[in-house]
Amino acid sequence: MKEMPTAIDTLKEKARRLRILSLKATTEAGSGHPSSCLSAADLMSVIFFNEMRFDPKDPRNPANDRFVLSKGHAAPLLWAAYAEAGIVGEKDVLTLRQLDSDLEGHPTPRMPWVDVATGSLGQGLSVGLGNALAAHLDGIPYNTYVLLGDGECAEGSVWEAAALASYYKASNLYAAIDVNGLGQSQRTMDQFDVNRFANKFRAFGWFATTIDGHNYAEIVEAFEQCRREGGSQPRVVVAKTLKGKGVSMLENRDGWHGKPVPKPDLPKVLEELSKPLGSNEFKPNPRKAEFSLPQGEPNVQITISRQSGESAATREAYGDALVKVAEKEPRVIALDGDTKNSTYSEKLLKAHPERFLEMFIAEQNMVDVAMGLAARGKIPFVSTFACFLTRAYDQIRVAGISRSNVKFCGSHAGVSIGEDGPSQMGLEDLAMFRAVPESVVLYPSDAVSTEQLVVEATRHRGICYIRTTRPKTPVLYPSNERFPIGGSKVLRQSPADRVAVIAAGITVHEALKAAAKLESARTPIRIIDAYSVKPIDTQTILRAAKDTGGRVVVVEDHYQEGGLGDAVLNAVGNQANVLKLAVREIPRSGPPEALLEKYGISANHIVEAVRELL
Amino acid sequence: MKEMPTAIDTLKEKARRLRILSLKATTEAGSGHPSSCLSAADLMSVIFFNEMRFDPKDPRNPANDRFVLSKGHAAPLLWAAYAEAGIVGEKDVLTLRQLDSDLEGHPTPRMPWVDVATGSLGQGLSVGLGNALAAHLDGIPYNTYVLLGDGECAEGSVWEAAALASYYKASNLYAAIDVNGLGQSQRTMDQFDVNRFANKFRAFGWFATTIDGHNYAEIVEAFEQCRREGGSQPRVVVAKTLKGKGVSMLENRDGWHGKPVPKPDLPKVLEELSKPLGSNEFKPNPRKAEFSLPQGEPNVQITISRQSGESAATREAYGDALVKVAEKEPRVIALDGDTKNSTYSEKLLKAHPERFLEMFIAEQNMVDVAMGLAARGKIPFVSTFACFLTRAYDQIRVAGISRSNVKFCGSHAGVSIGEDGPSQMGLEDLAMFRAVPESVVLYPSDAVSTEQLVVEATRHRGICYIRTTRPKTPVLYPSNERFPIGGSKVLRQSPADRVAVIAAGITVHEALKAAAKLESARTPIRIIDAYSVKPIDTQTILRAAKDTGGRVVVVEDHYQEGGLGDAVLNAVGNQANVLKLAVREIPRSGPPEALLEKYGISANHIVEAVRELL
Repeated sequence: MKEMPTAIDTLKEKARRLRILSLKATTEAGSGHPSSCLSAADLMSVIFFNEMRFDPKDPRNPANDRFVLSKGHAAPLLWAAYAEAGIVGEKDVLTLRQLDSDLEGHPTPRMPWVDVATGSLGQGLSVGLGNALAAHLDGIPYNTYVLLGDGECAEGSVWEAAALASYYKASNLYAAIDVNGLGQSQRTMDQFDVNRFANKFRAFGWFATTIDGHNYAEIVEAFEQCRREGGSQPRVVVAKTLKGKGVSMLENRDGWHGKPVPKPDLPKVLEELSKPLGSNEFKPNPRKAEFSLPQGEPNVQITISRQSGESAATREAYGDALVKVAEKEPRVIALDGDTKNSTYSEKLLKAHPERFLEMFIAEQNMVDVAMGLAARGKIPFVSTFACFLTRAYDQIRVAGISRSNVKFCGSHAGVSIGEDGPSQMGLEDLAMFRAVPESVVLYPSDAVSTEQLVVEATRHRGICYIRTTRPKTPVLYPSNERFPIGGSKVLRQSPADRVAVIAAGITVHEALKAAAKLESARTPIRIIDAYSVKPIDTQTILRAAKDTGGRVVVVEDHYQEGGLGDAVLNAVGNQANVLKLAVREIPRSGPPEALLEKYGISANHIVEAVRELL
Repeated sequence: MKEMPTAIDTLKEKARRLRILSLKATTEAGSGHPSSCLSAADLMSVIFFNEMRFDPKDPRNPANDRFVLSKGHAAPLLWAAYAEAGIVGEKDVLTLRQLDSDLEGHPTPRMPWVDVATGSLGQGLSVGLGNALAAHLDGIPYNTYVLLGDGECAEGSVWEAAALASYYKASNLYAAIDVNGLGQSQRTMDQFDVNRFANKFRAFGWFATTIDGHNYAEIVEAFEQCRREGGSQPRVVVAKTLKGKGVSMLENRDGWHGKPVPKPDLPKVLEELSKPLGSNEFKPNPRKAEFSLPQGEPNVQITISRQSGESAATREAYGDALVKVAEKEPRVIALDGDTKNSTYSEKLLKAHPERFLEMFIAEQNMVDVAMGLAARGKIPFVSTFACFLTRAYDQIRVAGISRSNVKFCGSHAGVSIGEDGPSQMGLEDLAMFRAVPESVVLYPSDAVSTEQLVVEATRHRGICYIRTTRPKTPVLYPSNERFPIGGSKVLRQSPADRVAVIAAGITVHEALKAAAKLESARTPIRIIDAYSVKPIDTQTILRAAKDTGGRVVVVEDHYQEGGLGDAVLNAVGNQANVLKLAVREIPRSGPPEALLEKYGISANHIVEAVRELL
């Protein structure tokens, strides 16, 4: 909190101005959620103008307190707060929702004070926890404030964050819940029962206090009380509020969610808010101490010592590489969902426990925490079984929108995991990650390429997905081979190649076996290891298509939609006749080799496909 | 509970046999999770052989109590319990994890007593809640028992289910938590703190009791106490247990998760369990009362009264159709995530409130509850914004594996939603649903096709996804037109067609505008409304490609990966030069028409694309 508290009249005046600007901006835009802004305006005023310490001239100052608007539909209130802090102009706020405005309908990092896009509800607390953990890791004394709606507390992700924040004693994390009792379409589940909210948080290990969210003495004191009594616990202020507070036409009325005040009614509405309530001043109070964080290109110099012919699971090579890049690059940190002995991220835990965060079985929170860490300059590697990343697809989608610098590794991809059965097989992960804009999707076939691709992922700014395999595979590449994003490797070629087989990961090895079988039948084939599924190496693939008379087989341990096969189809267009081998039904438990065979992606099926094309 | 309680010695003997069979089966399979079976064996014995009432000869009996093994990795224990109930043979259990065995590594409905696949943790409580709600809706007095692991209680979905079960007073729902304190890779977050688990559930409105999970008097009494004191609350038994209980080599030891006892050690291990503890009898005690549920083909006779030229949003037509099919077909029920006034599912709430379940903002739980309802014969329609279905992708994936008869509707698809911005735009939903095996993906362009496709979805058994649009679009079809799954509509054609434009949803209308513009330039084009994105109408598309010299434009309000464009590429192969128009970057807030224009999928862009191909 500020050294000199702001006068309550000033806070009231700020809130009055936040209300006016929220109303004006949404009416001007013709859409938006003013009633959701009005319920939170008093909380927002106290948080921004009494609680938080930040330098309004420097969004990147590492010592700034952080703010996350989890109830992202109240974006106009956030833009108004930035206006009242002198960060943007009032005129900017009135461009809300216009095509060329960075002040969008829901917050996105196009506005530089916003770390992560919000608006898909229930994610802000996890993002805030990511900030809070970064503060602990870096030893910087900033706090993180998260403003949540009451309705979004029905999202399980909120409780994932709540449990973990308590586990990590995130006493620098302040949540405020705007309990206005009204959802989008009806009363919320817990309505105005602020005690129920508080008791839930207490059961999850938080310090919780309940207040009237429009009573300034109570709001100011609530944060004070959190500081006095919160101890090592994360803390939450549960505030009973009224949706549309301050405007009689809207106040506590259903049917006004997501609706601006109609233009003709605006003057009358603003009239109710016309009387100044105190002095309109804002004295920024940034922390004086200087903190610096690593900047610039990541250091990714590592040495790989695998020998050709040796056998190793790519998931294990991922763990090896994680240790090596973490040792060179201080920003690298690993997050695990209690699968570290399977993904091999535990290698980093064992080598450098301070660079590892156990997130337990809560994938949604894990991904949002990673976004919060990335926003504070970390390079987080999130790993779990490929299939369990589907649990966090909304979070991954939002990471895409946020252009977040998060790395993902999904192990146990495909039917090749074997006996654990379909619920444990990642068979839609390539489709999922390919459909994230600006994402990079990597799928190594051996230990060397895995290590190099971890390096590439660390170096690349943006979302990268690395897909690893459960069984061991032989090392194919010399340890100094490079694997640039967007590239591929031609593993076999001759001028006589009749068919090009494009594979990735486990199927590269099936393709090599198929080539050996076909060799005895004097049918040479070209083999391409498409380790970069997105961007795909269009040039090499087109060349192979041309050299083989347009005969292409693609084989992947993934469902037939959205994976490598579709990437290749997009690359070749009508320049080749593509035969796609992929998993086409719900698989069973069984031995890996038997499953590759049964689901049509083994060496035998590649041989058949080649013959079919000839 | 049974009228005559089973003797405790008999329950102990049953547990001994469950332990032996779990150990034998996993050692035989060479993989699996015996230690996770052993911790829960005593709970399982009491639940199966003292608590539950079911007819072991009839898995489909509507009055059977239901059991959900949320900790699906303990599958061998479940198979062993079925063996001890006489449902399968001991020999069957020893086929665990073999390629031709329906007793898979994690439970799937290939085994007819299993409703829904488990193994992706944290989903079972929601599925059980779906069963419990079905019991309430149908007035059948069965109970549902869900066995959870402690580690999976970190998943937010568990707390979504917990909150909703309390809201709906699901007193017929019994959860048991096997608190063995050990996760896959380390101690769990809350370790043996059974009170913390109980307090969390109490804060969420449950009746909770804590026990020693290996003390039979306590286990039996815990369920009795739930009945006596649980009132209208859902109830949970939190049991402290030891992982590997009963086998000294495994008991409470880390490092044994997911590992069978090695074959050479098995005799020694079984020796510890060799002494019979009581009589081995099981007297089934099914409910005598007869209950019947609707069977057979759904009744889907509806009348559509839209006029050509009229304008209506497809999302609104979805609501209209929902009311009509629900009035004809008693199994239809709608589930909402507090977006019913946007998806228009609220039309059903208003017309028939008893056919509507408000699930609040908790999409994961919504999807799993729908699976539980579907398993009890309902035809659930789950609707929310298309983008928020990504929140439940893991659940949707598991619905696929479970061949669950759930219908999904995602409204507000694409950039055409306008000013709310990217976090609210569904732009990866087609990719997501296409990658679910056996799924059907439908994308209507007008009110008539929407209503007809709701009919088709109701009739079809399996997962269907219907994508609707926010803005109004003109009615294109006569109200008696039929829209079979797998079909398409040719909206314009002539022998002179130069290019085929394939569109769906909002882009059909852009294509029609483009055709009008091109007509004045004497460039006739064919227009195909590909309302069935999966399965796609390959025949009609190939015919169009042939008729137009292989010139095809595909245009969709979706990211470029995994949507309609890729479906068309797969259909045409090298028979056409396909130009894909799709959203290729992270969109902004703005007016719908401006966004269609900016992101390259408007009529103008279609005209350009057509010209480029000529």
